[in-house]
Amino acid sequence: MVDFLDQIAAAEKQNKSFLCVGLDPDPGRMPEHLAQEPDGIFRFCKGIVDATHDLVLAFKPQIAYFAAQGAEEQLRRVIEYIHANTDIPVILDAKRADISSTSKMYAEEAFDVYGADALTVNPYFGMDSIQPFLDYKDKGIIILCRTSNPGSAEIQNIVSQDGETVYEVVARKSAGEWNMHGNILLVAGATHPDELRRIREIVGGMTLLIPGVGAQGGDIPALIGSARGGGVIINSSRAVIYAGSGTDYADAARAAARETRDAINDAVYAICNDIRV
Amino acid sequence: MVDFLDQIAAAEKQNKSFLCVGLDPDPGRMPEHLAQEPDGIFRFCKGIVDATHDLVLAFKPQIAYFAAQGAEEQLRRVIEYIHANTDIPVILDAKRADISSTSKMYAEEAFDVYGADALTVNPYFGMDSIQPFLDYKDKGIIILCRTSNPGSAEIQNIVSQDGETVYEVVARKSAGEWNMHGNILLVAGATHPDELRRIREIVGGMTLLIPGVGAQGGDIPALIGSARGGGVIINSSRAVIYAGSGTDYADAARAAARETRDAINDAVYAICNDIRV
Repeated sequence: MVDFLDQIAAAEKQNKSFLCVGLDPDPGRMPEHLAQEPDGIFRFCKGIVDATHDLVLAFKPQIAYFAAQGAEEQLRRVIEYIHANTDIPVILDAKRADISSTSKMYAEEAFDVYGADALTVNPYFGMDSIQPFLDYKDKGIIILCRTSNPGSAEIQNIVSQDGETVYEVVARKSAGEWNMHGNILLVAGATHPDELRRIREIVGGMTLLIPGVGAQGGDIPALIGSARGGGVIINSSRAVIYAGSGTDYADAARAAARETRDAINDAVYAICNDIRV
Repeated sequence: MVDFLDQIAAAEKQNKSFLCVGLDPDPGRMPEHLAQEPDGIFRFCKGIVDATHDLVLAFKPQIAYFAAQGAEEQLRRVIEYIHANTDIPVILDAKRADISSTSKMYAEEAFDVYGADALTVNPYFGMDSIQPFLDYKDKGIIILCRTSNPGSAEIQNIVSQDGETVYEVVARKSAGEWNMHGNILLVAGATHPDELRRIREIVGGMTLLIPGVGAQGGDIPALIGSARGGGVIINSSRAVIYAGSGTDYADAARAAARETRDAINDAVYAICNDIRV
């Protein structure tokens, strides 16, 4: 099996891209000609994949959008299609976690049923809950650290008696004792650039999955400045896949993906110039 | 629609039971004659439901066990069967949470696709992530507070600068500002009786879902002593549903459910006697 981090690195190099396109198929926002088809979710996602696969380093289907329509089989087909037709790895965004015997079942769901290359997981249960995921050593296990939503500080920024926030504890353990197989990545929202910088300080070169650009408003140059010093996977979902709403939605998605990829690369190059000076 | 807490209260009264039976169908542990059938998961769960529905106040299917087999349709049929044939409410155990637009999709999965009466959710994202679930006002929203797994202290027992643990913050907010619709319940593991007592102090009479008896070893008199003063839903999964492994598995499950229900009731009555003295 190919290691997820190697897959990401190869795709980044091939497509000169740090962009991950999130697949959040919402029938209420999908083009009308697809929303009414029985396999419209699959066809919508296929259109996005065909139009953007040479501009991204990963695709990230969000399972809730499929599950809300009872469309698990279409999700399976989307992932199968990506694997059969591109070299792009697939992050299943599912934010799973439970006691270890149940986490083992969620790992089977993600990796055996859907064939995902990486999975997002929630750290609230602690390490023993994450272990069954980590044991899939060739898969990327992407732990929530600092999420992009407005209310995320409520739990994640509780400050401990040692002066460490909850998200800093998650970052420290993820870069240390939890990472025995070297396959942990972290979620660090683009909407909190200061915390993103702090996470980078804690985890060194670990690859970060950064949601929150596009519809959520995260600033690309700011996040690149904060995240420099290690790998990044920068996700945009709605701003890309709903860039258009007609029969030309895939062309619109391609234009939006190219623009976002280039904006990210411009921000990276600006830093490189800065370093050269 | 009937309110979840009313459904629980009615079932408790009718069956004189605080026991919830968890439906964790694992083909590796199911009776051989069912494990090989195409709808064996449904038939296994149906057997448990038929054998125990007059001994419980809730059923709690754990979605990971169905998803690991690609058996979402069988889960839908199990819940439909329970609703059509019993008065017992269904807790979908899925531990969901994400940014609010995605949480909305998870809520649709639980309540619209599966027709669950209650759902377990994870508080790591904070309030705005839980809101889309809470807005289903007649449904029970069961937030993870102190989980039953061995490693649960790692994040949940981080002590803040105000001297409050993370799980105490979750309990306080769940009993206060988060509970605008009065439909929050909390998960408090039987394996940590001191923390269970502390949660009861914080939340007053709020109903607690208590996993961890049976296979996980939680002590019933200890947990009843800790949880007194408010509603309880005490879950046992594996110790009931895998009490037998042959064609008589349902009879064995019934015997185990009755024994657990009675052990809980004995512990409750012991406290009542104590109070009377």
